[in-house]
Amino acid sequence: MSTERTEIEKLGEFGLIDRLTQNFETYNASTILSIGDDAAVIDHFGKQTVITTDLLVEGVHFDLMYTPLKHLGYKSVVVNLSDIYAMNAQPTQITMSLAFSNRFSLEALEEFYEGVAIACDKYGVDLIGGDTSTSQKGLIISVTAIGEVAPDQYIKRSTAESGDLICVSGDLGAAFLGLTLMEREKQIFLENPQIQPNLENEDYIVGRLLRPEARKDIIELLEKLEIKPTSMMDISDGLSSDVLHLCKQSELGCRIYEEKIPINEASKAAAFKFGLDATVCALNGGEDYELLFTMKQADYDKMTMQEEISVIGYMCDASEGKKLITKGNNLFDITAQGWNAFAKEA
Amino acid sequence: MSTERTEIEKLGEFGLIDRLTQNFETYNASTILSIGDDAAVIDHFGKQTVITTDLLVEGVHFDLMYTPLKHLGYKSVVVNLSDIYAMNAQPTQITMSLAFSNRFSLEALEEFYEGVAIACDKYGVDLIGGDTSTSQKGLIISVTAIGEVAPDQYIKRSTAESGDLICVSGDLGAAFLGLTLMEREKQIFLENPQIQPNLENEDYIVGRLLRPEARKDIIELLEKLEIKPTSMMDISDGLSSDVLHLCKQSELGCRIYEEKIPINEASKAAAFKFGLDATVCALNGGEDYELLFTMKQADYDKMTMQEEISVIGYMCDASEGKKLITKGNNLFDITAQGWNAFAKEA
Repeated sequence: MSTERTEIEKLGEFGLIDRLTQNFETYNASTILSIGDDAAVIDHFGKQTVITTDLLVEGVHFDLMYTPLKHLGYKSVVVNLSDIYAMNAQPTQITMSLAFSNRFSLEALEEFYEGVAIACDKYGVDLIGGDTSTSQKGLIISVTAIGEVAPDQYIKRSTAESGDLICVSGDLGAAFLGLTLMEREKQIFLENPQIQPNLENEDYIVGRLLRPEARKDIIELLEKLEIKPTSMMDISDGLSSDVLHLCKQSELGCRIYEEKIPINEASKAAAFKFGLDATVCALNGGEDYELLFTMKQADYDKMTMQEEISVIGYMCDASEGKKLITKGNNLFDITAQGWNAFAKEA
Repeated sequence: MSTERTEIEKLGEFGLIDRLTQNFETYNASTILSIGDDAAVIDHFGKQTVITTDLLVEGVHFDLMYTPLKHLGYKSVVVNLSDIYAMNAQPTQITMSLAFSNRFSLEALEEFYEGVAIACDKYGVDLIGGDTSTSQKGLIISVTAIGEVAPDQYIKRSTAESGDLICVSGDLGAAFLGLTLMEREKQIFLENPQIQPNLENEDYIVGRLLRPEARKDIIELLEKLEIKPTSMMDISDGLSSDVLHLCKQSELGCRIYEEKIPINEASKAAAFKFGLDATVCALNGGEDYELLFTMKQADYDKMTMQEEISVIGYMCDASEGKKLITKGNNLFDITAQGWNAFAKEA
């Protein structure tokens, strides 16, 4: 991080916006008018618009003690793009609003925007607007992402059918284990600031927490394989919570096989070290930003040899309930234990 | 306000969203998919999309000591719609995100959403998404508004030409005088809680502060009169600051006649009472949400008898500077003294 410190008030609101957004490029022909007017203008040329928004609050969604601002800027964009891909759409634009207390310098905000710019470049989206403000306490980030999809090609959560296979991309639980590690190291540091954090061999789980990716590649792969999911969503609250959403909105039940839930070896090792059950981490952890989708059984053969996609179960009638089949062949009800920002801390 | 108090954590995030959004209607055929999925879907049927976003922070943009939550919900929507109208577009959808500390009950949030619903109904816009979260301190509101415009019929800030007439809708300075009054009454109350606020005869200025409207009617009037502004923006930071934006973005200068600046009689009376100059309030006050636009001189005759629009000056070459012509026929430079959230308090 830069060691300079420029106070924001020297620039004023418009000077600040100019400064932070000066190096952003425009990647999409659909971006007709960008930052600098009352509003931005987009032409989707006959496609439908997909829009989603997220609010990230310091102390609730992120801890700046172990989250570099550049990573946070990157992640703020990616978590919104993940929602656009989960609709089977391509993201095209974002707006980014920030409220921050006076402990943030211009250099700190520039770090944040550097991460935003890297994400915009990687995913080909344009920053077209936003708002900046002071806050009474901490950093608050509000991102809206806009995408496009050919008319009626978007995929909802409510259209799965009984018998459809349940699939997830990548692997689950790593971000939660990364969070567990960082929180543990933070406590050790707070108790004794002389001790340096021990993050050896933990690159994978820490990376999944601090610098997640949106699964643009999976949307492209499904198109190439000519598989159109019957329903889809991204996993942000944890597999349990999110599969229950699919069931509720499609008015169905499900069976998930514990042994089929994809868990990275690094996550298994970390879970063992922390005395946690890796399956529980995958079910309840959250922040994976993998895709959860259902497909027709007839499409199963198209999926062979695809390491990035796991078939973990199937949808059934609502009357059969929502169950996990354990490795020991026991049946358990799936309950929502995902992230809940409103639950009281114990 | 209701006297019940239901803690938010009883509902959880999804229960809360369901509860708050259950009574919202859909007004637009363009709203294909609304709240409840990863993202919403809009079809603009060949029109262009206009998009704007605002972040409102307790203690910076509003004071809950004198701002009823229902009015705040209404205003949060309206200030964003104002930006859409300022592009010559029609608003169609909004997303609404909230972060709030645990001092807010379900009933308080329902009050807020009641105001949101009234604004949505009045302006015919659909609430299609959002996010809710806890905050460490206070209430934070993030609204994104989406609108539509026939291809290339949007109006920018950068397209005024030398000789064009400068016009404003309605009257200016009232919201600032309303704020001055409320801050004064707040101080009196804090010093002696026995004294009840004296808001007699101040309905107009208080209303302009707490429950502003977006000038949908002016956009309709201009269309009826067959006047297409050459540039347009809304007045949110104060006439001085905003006319300087028009000048800067159009690379021009301007002349504004003090005597032509529209000020309501109630505002003049309040300014007199507070020992303030009404013109200064109109120039620097902000939060008027009136429209500021330029038009060809040839359109002047179409404008006669339109009480809601005032011609206040004209654009000139940049070399002639940006000047106010006072009632006493003196020339002063116009300087930006509008609201600046980053300026240090004295």
